[in-house]
Amino acid sequence: MSAPEVVLLAGGAGTRLWPVSREARPKQFFRIEGVSLLAESFGRARRIAANGGARPDAAHENVWAVVTAALAASTRAELPLLPPANLLAEPERRNTAAAIGWAAVEVKRRRGGDAVLAVLPADQHVANVDAFAAAAARAVALARDGRLVTMGIRPTRPETGYGWLETGASLGEGAFQLARFVEKPDRARAEEFFARPERFLWNAGIFFFRADRMLAEIATHMPMLAGALAEIEASPARLPEIYAALPRDLPSIDYGVMERAADVACVAAGEVGWSDVGSWAALREVLPRDERTHNVALGDPILIDTERSIVDARDQANVKVVAVVGVRDVCVVVTDDAVLVCAVDQAQRVKDVVEAIRKTKKTEVL
Amino acid sequence: MSAPEVVLLAGGAGTRLWPVSREARPKQFFRIEGVSLLAESFGRARRIAANGGARPDAAHENVWAVVTAALAASTRAELPLLPPANLLAEPERRNTAAAIGWAAVEVKRRRGGDAVLAVLPADQHVANVDAFAAAAARAVALARDGRLVTMGIRPTRPETGYGWLETGASLGEGAFQLARFVEKPDRARAEEFFARPERFLWNAGIFFFRADRMLAEIATHMPMLAGALAEIEASPARLPEIYAALPRDLPSIDYGVMERAADVACVAAGEVGWSDVGSWAALREVLPRDERTHNVALGDPILIDTERSIVDARDQANVKVVAVVGVRDVCVVVTDDAVLVCAVDQAQRVKDVVEAIRKTKKTEVL
Repeated sequence: MSAPEVVLLAGGAGTRLWPVSREARPKQFFRIEGVSLLAESFGRARRIAANGGARPDAAHENVWAVVTAALAASTRAELPLLPPANLLAEPERRNTAAAIGWAAVEVKRRRGGDAVLAVLPADQHVANVDAFAAAAARAVALARDGRLVTMGIRPTRPETGYGWLETGASLGEGAFQLARFVEKPDRARAEEFFARPERFLWNAGIFFFRADRMLAEIATHMPMLAGALAEIEASPARLPEIYAALPRDLPSIDYGVMERAADVACVAAGEVGWSDVGSWAALREVLPRDERTHNVALGDPILIDTERSIVDARDQANVKVVAVVGVRDVCVVVTDDAVLVCAVDQAQRVKDVVEAIRKTKKTEVL
Repeated sequence: MSAPEVVLLAGGAGTRLWPVSREARPKQFFRIEGVSLLAESFGRARRIAANGGARPDAAHENVWAVVTAALAASTRAELPLLPPANLLAEPERRNTAAAIGWAAVEVKRRRGGDAVLAVLPADQHVANVDAFAAAAARAVALARDGRLVTMGIRPTRPETGYGWLETGASLGEGAFQLARFVEKPDRARAEEFFARPERFLWNAGIFFFRADRMLAEIATHMPMLAGALAEIEASPARLPEIYAALPRDLPSIDYGVMERAADVACVAAGEVGWSDVGSWAALREVLPRDERTHNVALGDPILIDTERSIVDARDQANVKVVAVVGVRDVCVVVTDDAVLVCAVDQAQRVKDVVEAIRKTKKTEVL
């Protein structure tokens, strides 16, 4: 029984952690306690590979990363153990279905069609890796049997910003048939879901499947993509032109494949301490905080009479001192060329800031 | 009747507007609408000289500045019209009594003992210069008669951070005998004073007197300083050693002379729009604000859902963008090497920040 191939989706381009996250250094490069989310995800991927049968000291050989070409060099630098042949650099960004489809083609070519893929976003944080790896092992086992498997995260709040999963019949040991994918709900439905954690879970975009099963599903539900993948399989050198010809509005793997496929399973991850680190507010929840003030202080800011705030003052060449006085629930993020001060409960509006900057044409700070 | 000699006290060393104000660029260099408080004070000084009889196009020849040696070059650069001989550079900082005493000696030597001096701090802001100059003209007239005169500012709040003036018998036209100087009051007394604006005024540290009268008062009340001034008068070249020998804890002109002198007059300035610009909170009151949000924005910050805040993002070489989202009553001050975020009502605690920085030894940002 061969170990799973763990594919990191590392092409993310978000600016939700601006000004630390930049187009050239997106969220997966954000460091928590000195470790980038990308490097953390790589470690998690190795655990999944090792749990699934890889030799622990060679588990990195089962880890892959799909990135955009612009991020290939920095991804390689961040993941020195990633085998060069396992870095799949997309010439242009398409959606997750293309990235996952190409990975399935490559895995099939090198490991065989019955190889199991585990696909993880590379810009998430998981506090409890043991629990996460145990859930992943159950998902890998189900995928070996030919199922499409998604991992459900136990919700910690009635989040309207995520898709949710509704579970169906039990498959034993925290595994279920998936009843359906639920689009991002409004507040009332999110509250309703949150009240039924035995049935409704967060969709974290983490999937498990055999290469041949996924390629068959793509052939059924996304025939144009399937055609392109067949061309790539036949003529790998033509990848750039094939990618360029793919439509820019290709659907995601969720919408294009998973929601349309029959027989999808769901493994409920337990208390894994998962976060998508999707905003400075989310980061405040994830990072170690001061017991008395509940502040999260990165770098060495001066905090006076300040509470429940997150201040990132790390590693700047020019900015020597960041001082925060007399505020509550504020994010203060300082880089050498841009500064953000934002109420924590408005952290999602960083996208409005990014939009405003695009209009000012000072886009060198993005 | 000769015009008054207007002496700017420009040796201020405050860091209350840190991080814009620095030890090497103290508050008098802070710019409001492009003009430093020092240059603004110079303009006010010329108006006082011209009102008192100086030819308007030569009024700058009646303006003097007392600075510390460390600030001499930058003061000269900021005030190109200041006659070089009128820049009195103290080798070391002593208190206002020494600065004013030395100015009186120099004015007496070059203009005669009956010359009137007007002494102004060079780091204050006055919105209504016409009204201020009119009040100063009354004060100059009283000083010509041999009186010590202080200017009282009509209070706009029950301020506990200033000394106050209690007026006595009227001398006509907004002038009074001064009943007494009042030390910084506690809150209750400040409220009491504020309720009686016909009697209690703010002491702004603005004084008018003849050179010989001031030197006589110093001889009476500060004999050690008088001895030093006599030595300076006799041997100007020995200034450095004479200054060095002065005690470091020499009292201020208020405490050392004005409060002890008999027959002090007070001219009540009307609606002059005076501010000591003593904090970022004070600046918020002085600077032009947005009508809708009541924000004060310097430079070109991005402000989203932010109100009653002051954001200084001017003229940085490296910091290109400052964005503030979802906050109320906050000061955000960004320089290339230091950032301050501070609740407006805690603005006086910038001194605690400066203290904390001294302990970190990152004193290059002070």
